Amino acid sequence: MNFKEELLKAQKRISPYIHNTPVLTSRLLNEIAGAELYFKCENFQKMGAFKMRGATNALLQLTDVQKTRGVVTHSSGNFAQAVALAARNIGIKAYIVMPKNTPQVKKEAVIGYGGIVIESESTPIAREEKAEAVLQETGATFVHPSNDIPVIIGQGTATMELLKAHPDLEALITPVGGGGLLGGTALAAHYFGKNCPTFAGEPQEVDDAYRSLKSGKIESNKTTDTIADGLRTQLGDNNFPIIQKYVSAIICVSESEIIAAMKLIWERLKIVVEPSSAVAFAAVLKDKNRFKNKKVGLILSGGNVDLANLPF
Amino acid sequence: MNFKEELLKAQKRISPYIHNTPVLTSRLLNEIAGAELYFKCENFQKMGAFKMRGATNALLQLTDVQKTRGVVTHSSGNFAQAVALAARNIGIKAYIVMPKNTPQVKKEAVIGYGGIVIESESTPIAREEKAEAVLQETGATFVHPSNDIPVIIGQGTATMELLKAHPDLEALITPVGGGGLLGGTALAAHYFGKNCPTFAGEPQEVDDAYRSLKSGKIESNKTTDTIADGLRTQLGDNNFPIIQKYVSAIICVSESEIIAAMKLIWERLKIVVEPSSAVAFAAVLKDKNRFKNKKVGLILSGGNVDLANLPF
Repeated sequence: MNFKEELLKAQKRISPYIHNTPVLTSRLLNEIAGAELYFKCENFQKMGAFKMRGATNALLQLTDVQKTRGVVTHSSGNFAQAVALAARNIGIKAYIVMPKNTPQVKKEAVIGYGGIVIESESTPIAREEKAEAVLQETGATFVHPSNDIPVIIGQGTATMELLKAHPDLEALITPVGGGGLLGGTALAAHYFGKNCPTFAGEPQEVDDAYRSLKSGKIESNKTTDTIADGLRTQLGDNNFPIIQKYVSAIICVSESEIIAAMKLIWERLKIVVEPSSAVAFAAVLKDKNRFKNKKVGLILSGGNVDLANLPF
Repeated sequence: MNFKEELLKAQKRISPYIHNTPVLTSRLLNEIAGAELYFKCENFQKMGAFKMRGATNALLQLTDVQKTRGVVTHSSGNFAQAVALAARNIGIKAYIVMPKNTPQVKKEAVIGYGGIVIESESTPIAREEKAEAVLQETGATFVHPSNDIPVIIGQGTATMELLKAHPDLEALITPVGGGGLLGGTALAAHYFGKNCPTFAGEPQEVDDAYRSLKSGKIESNKTTDTIADGLRTQLGDNNFPIIQKYVSAIICVSESEIIAAMKLIWERLKIVVEPSSAVAFAAVLKDKNRFKNKKVGLILSGGNVDLANLPF
């Protein structure tokens, strides 16, 4: 596959449906980090997260027959909302399999965007089986939150926008959970940056991506006890080879480092970001020597957070 | 005084020292309000609030002799930081009288911007006496947080920027505390808007401005028990006549309405604003009929908030 061409097509394809989000800077955060930071604010993206890009790119490539049957995914997070909203924008049905114990507010957000919520038990297997059952019944097309190539490519468009505004970035960094954002970012940085390596921040508590890069095979997590709820998933067979090839390093951060970085972003940039977004910034603060005096682009992944349940 | 000319001069004078802050919109908030809302984000202003405009405008008009002696103000809030930062930008001394019981974090913010903190007892009279003593000792020039004409004019520049970007606004609304922002906004809307009346939101708990407009003289508050800590002050003799002449109405809102509006702004615009900022939006939601289907500009006054002490 010609990734460069796919990225360019994706950008053109999805641009009517997404925001070219703003890039924020802060002199004080630069001083703290000892680097020049450019925050790409996907918290201002439609439905509040970068996931809108990948979902839109995937859904727009369905055939007419597929469109009449709709799409199905399993997610309790931002991808659920992204697929629901992207589907509504295009005029197709979206079946969203969500665990029974998903907070009501998240179900309502999906329903608010016109998605059809289907409840499952909360184990990964139960979710996949339920999605499979919906597929069988409806003929809908399955879209994976982070491992489908059109989704990965779509996520890369945030970096294309960032590099267009700031072509001389010397490093890019994202959080890594399922690997869709990281894979897409690494491809975009490779094809559209000028010698701009890609890094990731990952919570120590779910360091499967870090271990996967070390071992050379996809590792999983025994526990997923992190505040960064968007990063509890593991890499997939499509994004892992991309990450192996194009990602320079993964930097693991503790829960307290994530919370401290999140607080700095809220206080200094005056924006609401979810804990997962703070993981990339926490990694920059942890590994200062690596980024010293460099121009660093950070993807702030999203801003969907429960204000009644903040860590500070 | 030719206010129009002063506003134009102020805009030119302060532009190297301030941000032309972004304007945010939200389809969902428009639906909730039944109006088309344009949020002028002064929470993204330098030091985090519109006060930077007025302070800068006032300090830049000092004579060379005055500059050598510095400035003094009394404030425990955003104006303290604004004067400290504006003074540092211009290269002069700033003496900031703050009550002893001011939270340490606020004192440190002023010191961080290079201001000289001078403690006083916490009564208004004690603060004024202390400021007077500093004046006598240093020969510094006193700058009032909301009642000096250059400060009032400086605050109006936010509305000039907003009207330049959206010339067809049909109403403007700000919070009102000391009246500097409201006075400056009303002047700017009068001279640069097209039939664009100005309104204010005010906490019911400190409704002195509302009562002042009714009685025709400056009223004060017996208690100031509101979460909107920037709005606990009362109108001054310079801004009151401007407000009487150019402000159409003041809409009072309850504490729970302020908190609900603040939460909506955080959740939907994904930005951090202080409670005072939410008062204008709360007023729009309270008096929906007045703004129905209109294009309304709201000044979000600032984003300096204690994250450890949120109302939700």
